[in-house]
Amino acid sequence: MTNSTIGVGLIGTGFMGKCHALAWNAVAATFGEARRPRLVHLAEADQSLADSKAREFGFAKASGDWRAVIADPEVDVVSIAAPNPFHAEMACAAFEAGKHVWCEKPMATSRDDARRMLEAQKGSGRVAALGYNYIQNPAIRQMEALIQDGVIGTVNHVRLEMDEDFMADPDAPFVYKNGAASGYGALDDFAVHPLSILWRLAGPVSSVMTDQAKPYASREGRRVETHEIATSLLRLRSGASGLLVANRAAWGRKGRIAVQVFGSAGTIAYDQERMNEFQLFTREGDERTQGFRTVLTAPAHAPYGAFVPAPGHGLGFNDLKVIEAHELLAAIDGRPARIVDFETGFAIEETVHAMARSHDERRWVDCPA
Amino acid sequence: MTNSTIGVGLIGTGFMGKCHALAWNAVAATFGEARRPRLVHLAEADQSLADSKAREFGFAKASGDWRAVIADPEVDVVSIAAPNPFHAEMACAAFEAGKHVWCEKPMATSRDDARRMLEAQKGSGRVAALGYNYIQNPAIRQMEALIQDGVIGTVNHVRLEMDEDFMADPDAPFVYKNGAASGYGALDDFAVHPLSILWRLAGPVSSVMTDQAKPYASREGRRVETHEIATSLLRLRSGASGLLVANRAAWGRKGRIAVQVFGSAGTIAYDQERMNEFQLFTREGDERTQGFRTVLTAPAHAPYGAFVPAPGHGLGFNDLKVIEAHELLAAIDGRPARIVDFETGFAIEETVHAMARSHDERRWVDCPA
Amino acid sequence: MTNSTIGVGLIGTGFMGKCHALAWNAVAATFGEARRPRLVHLAEADQSLADSKAREFGFAKASGDWRAVIADPEVDVVSIAAPNPFHAEMACAAFEAGKHVWCEKPMATSRDDARRMLEAQKGSGRVAALGYNYIQNPAIRQMEALIQDGVIGTVNHVRLEMDEDFMADPDAPFVYKNGAASGYGALDDFAVHPLSILWRLAGPVSSVMTDQAKPYASREGRRVETHEIATSLLRLRSGASGLLVANRAAWGRKGRIAVQVFGSAGTIAYDQERMNEFQLFTREGDERTQGFRTVLTAPAHAPYGAFVPAPGHGLGFNDLKVIEAHELLAAIDGRPARIVDFETGFAIEETVHAMARSHDERRWVDCPA
Amino acid sequence: MTNSTIGVGLIGTGFMGKCHALAWNAVAATFGEARRPRLVHLAEADQSLADSKAREFGFAKASGDWRAVIADPEVDVVSIAAPNPFHAEMACAAFEAGKHVWCEKPMATSRDDARRMLEAQKGSGRVAALGYNYIQNPAIRQMEALIQDGVIGTVNHVRLEMDEDFMADPDAPFVYKNGAASGYGALDDFAVHPLSILWRLAGPVSSVMTDQAKPYASREGRRVETHEIATSLLRLRSGASGLLVANRAAWGRKGRIAVQVFGSAGTIAYDQERMNEFQLFTREGDERTQGFRTVLTAPAHAPYGAFVPAPGHGLGFNDLKVIEAHELLAAIDGRPARIVDFETGFAIEETVHAMARSHDERRWVDCPA
Repeated sequence: MTNSTIGVGLIGTGFMGKCHALAWNAVAATFGEARRPRLVHLAEADQSLADSKAREFGFAKASGDWRAVIADPEVDVVSIAAPNPFHAEMACAAFEAGKHVWCEKPMATSRDDARRMLEAQKGSGRVAALGYNYIQNPAIRQMEALIQDGVIGTVNHVRLEMDEDFMADPDAPFVYKNGAASGYGALDDFAVHPLSILWRLAGPVSSVMTDQAKPYASREGRRVETHEIATSLLRLRSGASGLLVANRAAWGRKGRIAVQVFGSAGTIAYDQERMNEFQLFTREGDERTQGFRTVLTAPAHAPYGAFVPAPGHGLGFNDLKVIEAHELLAAIDGRPARIVDFETGFAIEETVHAMARSHDERRWVDCPA
Repeated sequence: MTNSTIGVGLIGTGFMGKCHALAWNAVAATFGEARRPRLVHLAEADQSLADSKAREFGFAKASGDWRAVIADPEVDVVSIAAPNPFHAEMACAAFEAGKHVWCEKPMATSRDDARRMLEAQKGSGRVAALGYNYIQNPAIRQMEALIQDGVIGTVNHVRLEMDEDFMADPDAPFVYKNGAASGYGALDDFAVHPLSILWRLAGPVSSVMTDQAKPYASREGRRVETHEIATSLLRLRSGASGLLVANRAAWGRKGRIAVQVFGSAGTIAYDQERMNEFQLFTREGDERTQGFRTVLTAPAHAPYGAFVPAPGHGLGFNDLKVIEAHELLAAIDGRPARIVDFETGFAIEETVHAMARSHDERRWVDCPA
Repeated sequence: MTNSTIGVGLIGTGFMGKCHALAWNAVAATFGEARRPRLVHLAEADQSLADSKAREFGFAKASGDWRAVIADPEVDVVSIAAPNPFHAEMACAAFEAGKHVWCEKPMATSRDDARRMLEAQKGSGRVAALGYNYIQNPAIRQMEALIQDGVIGTVNHVRLEMDEDFMADPDAPFVYKNGAASGYGALDDFAVHPLSILWRLAGPVSSVMTDQAKPYASREGRRVETHEIATSLLRLRSGASGLLVANRAAWGRKGRIAVQVFGSAGTIAYDQERMNEFQLFTREGDERTQGFRTVLTAPAHAPYGAFVPAPGHGLGFNDLKVIEAHELLAAIDGRPARIVDFETGFAIEETVHAMARSHDERRWVDCPA
Repeated sequence: MTNSTIGVGLIGTGFMGKCHALAWNAVAATFGEARRPRLVHLAEADQSLADSKAREFGFAKASGDWRAVIADPEVDVVSIAAPNPFHAEMACAAFEAGKHVWCEKPMATSRDDARRMLEAQKGSGRVAALGYNYIQNPAIRQMEALIQDGVIGTVNHVRLEMDEDFMADPDAPFVYKNGAASGYGALDDFAVHPLSILWRLAGPVSSVMTDQAKPYASREGRRVETHEIATSLLRLRSGASGLLVANRAAWGRKGRIAVQVFGSAGTIAYDQERMNEFQLFTREGDERTQGFRTVLTAPAHAPYGAFVPAPGHGLGFNDLKVIEAHELLAAIDGRPARIVDFETGFAIEETVHAMARSHDERRWVDCPA
């Protein structure tokens, strides 16, 4: 293994753009990467913001035009953290230019765009990863490993809840996210996250029966077009039954992604608001001492140990992105990697579209196989 | 208010029969009832068991025939804790004999029987209460009061989960509860409990979309006819959206009834496994100190103080039945009472039947108004 | 085993007197006692209150003089729930009259009185039990059994905290409990409870180093004479190290008795505010799934099943007194019983006196062996 | 504010050395520092390890001799993360060379060395910060702000517990940390951490009464010289009473630093194992809805927002070091900074030495003012 480098470009420097930048700065020191990232070129909507962010984030070049990043021959991989409507154009251009792509979720705001991205990637032979960082949590990875090892037996039922409260205030002004142009609402904004976890823990969804609701019909006199709440019955391809609910108007919930997976020999539960622990019940052992155990993440749960050698000391949200970067680098080097590629990402988004159709047609809808 | 007594009859001495007996023994000392119960007459399937249970439970007379209890002129109110298929005949006979009835849930194993019971009660002018003891928890009563006081604003979303694990073991033998004669499965065995709570906190259900699942198709070579898991989308008459799930095969869950009620100004959550506390979030106050508060039940939450004058000391499952007895006595005395009468009980069971039909027909089903 | 009865007398009908009354009403129905209690005679400070409480609690006779209860030949066992300064005289009179005694803790307000009670009991051959009901919790009993079975290895360290907040308000008026006549303060009012648990889980204390503190020096201009906070280092006779803290001024704590017991192979933790569960960690098994398990009490933890046949349904504070009554009846019948007798109770109170002396003398003090 | 840089040297690349490296890599992108760190020079025990770590951590130069780092004119600030016995020599040399120092705790293995470091720093006019990263947690900072704002009134009682289990296994081999050369044991290894938090929340300790214990007297036939458990009574300079316990042999505890601060108007509690939340009780408001609220950290709690703009998403252990680096840079720029300087660090270590003396002499010991 040679000690080469890899050139990084970044488009967008908001919430997730900064998160990518932090990950690119941290991944080599954390994992001792064989390929150390060089922070080559960053783009923002205007040159002045780009300059200032490049300085903060440690990128060598800055442009007010994202095409400059993609055209830069020193850039090998492009982080796309621009607003969702731009993802398709940027990603397709990047693949055409022979770059690898690390794109924030969702892939696109339309199925056609997403499909176009998937095809562009397939034709390019380049690696693509979507920003489903929650699955990188050592807790989630450990839960997945335990399920695969049969520790809770055959999974027969799942429950997924994602809740935040940034849309909970009925007196808040009308914003972009209340308009139809932003998508369905909680369904695409939130549901994709628990679905990405579900995919790892229990596999794909086969059919859905969904209901969407608006807690507040209007804001500032304008009709709210999105649904802040989505509830869905699920049937998984495995036959397991399930529930998913997403709510952007859930007062008091700040970053809740609650997962319960029930099997024939035990149960696993998790809540993203306490991301450094999970709950495990197995039926074995003395009946008098059975109970859900709270497992704190630890070096025993890879790749926790790359961050802290002591157990129970806690990773943070941004650390998950560092793990994602590490996995992406592995994929680029042709090693096995734990990423959500465009194929899986597309399937997740297809599931969300099926949910929206189910709501409209008030019936069970099958998800594309 | 005179210091009279009221004659009590009890039919059935199993799990719930004993629970009734404990309540009848405790209610006067707990609440200082104006009408002190006299434990008059108890019936069991055979005379010898009846004799022994009468001695244990403190009843004066014992019979091997339940009709003797109903015929006893000293009996004013009859506790019916016999197997569900007998409820209808016993209750109707009791009303005909002019007795008040305290009947365990569900009312009956068929809609026709339940309707017959409801009509018999209406014609009799006697009081009827169903054994939905969970709603008597001071925690639940406080949650209801807070919601009615507008503390969490307008309720727009609810989630209800009821989980136990007595059907979780795939290797357990085939039992009565696995056969169709026992009912639908989790739907009628469990779902009625969270529904009784929902009725108090957020009102009746208007339509349901339900899916039932069998984690284990057979036991001991026999086909399992019931569904251990039921998942349901709900729409409430208020317009609120909701979810209900009931699972008798949820490893590790022992007596979980998890309730989440979301409103325009806050959220309330509860879990029956920690029955002496509830969680409350309200949007008011300093943003830096907002959070779900864990409220321990206390004398401030009536009727907790009838049991213990100190806060945070804890009531138990059986105490809820004592409260139920107290409420029943109030109803008999013509005072306002917090009971699930046959009308509400019938509506709850109608909702469950609508859920079963929804499952069969794979469509949304309206609940009778 | 004959089906006889036992005559019960009760002195005092306040918080704990009512608790005794509830227990005497419930114990036969709960446990199917061979000896069914007859509620014979109750005493209160005046006849009218006695009459009214006798009716509520179901006692046949009522007196305004406690000596009438002790003189009553139908009374076999006397519940003493009068104010602490009266315990000694009542208990000694009861033993002299050949009664068994169930006395609320503490035994007495002075060491001499307590010693006199112990000697009176020894001379009488009658049974005496102190009202340390917390140790009757099936959770505590299970913890004790697990420790005795070696599940956490050799105990090497313990921590005990008891906290409530009824003395937390600096603006509250001066009350009896703020005066020296009421005792030391948190030390005798609270510390005896965790000590009673410690005795069961890890054995007696051998030496103490204690500090007492007054959060508020005066109330209503009067000097507060008691200490609301007591902190103590402990060494147990086993050699284990430990800590005990008692605080009557701990805002937000309502009935907290937090116990942590550390051993060479695991740890057990408990909090009375969640009295239906305990936490257990053992070092065995796969490192990836180790964690504290939350064990919900269940029929597997005797005598939980006497109350509810289903796990995780919860006992309450008053149920612990029912168990205590059951154990007392066993002791009276000469069967093995789990009670805090006067000998152990005296040792517990001696430990508290040693703590007070340690505070005064600012040095480690040995407890009498 | 000019956009200059600052040259960084690092000595040591183990657990904490890597943690420093991660912080130096992340701090500019996280906080948009005016002074961007340049990673200049790294030292390890041998050149080959230094080379490899420099590549991983992104340092330009690598040396097998730490003096080369201190002699490097491009280095402005030196991170000292070498074993504790070397701290004094390195720090004094750094100050002499005019460098700022960021030194891991404890300052030194002897009081004389620590005092020498303090004097060297004072004479140099350079900034010194100790690696007490736990106090940088936005949760702790918020707790401190609330206490200073009087939200819980006057602090009258504190409890501090620090527990891990890496010394819990009695069958583990004898290691360096079991020998007297490593220090007292839990007292200096652990107690300094909760003390650093205590200093922020409630101020300095005035006197201590301490007991140390050895759960296992020997390992592999060798006498264990350290004490894995230390328990201590505290009196704070404010007059508040307190308890501190540190235990390296607490099975199941992984990174527990449990803090309880009681005041005249409320209580605050925290556990490092759930580092993204704290508990707050205040006496105000409706009695029916009082309870400990679980506050999740959020952008409202600076500097959380520098990491994630959304609440409840969670920081990790390593993020605390990034905050520490940010504060150090502020101090170097002469701005107000929240660091543990050598003066406070020395006072914390003096408190620990007082504890050890108290144990030896079995008496209360005053801490130097």
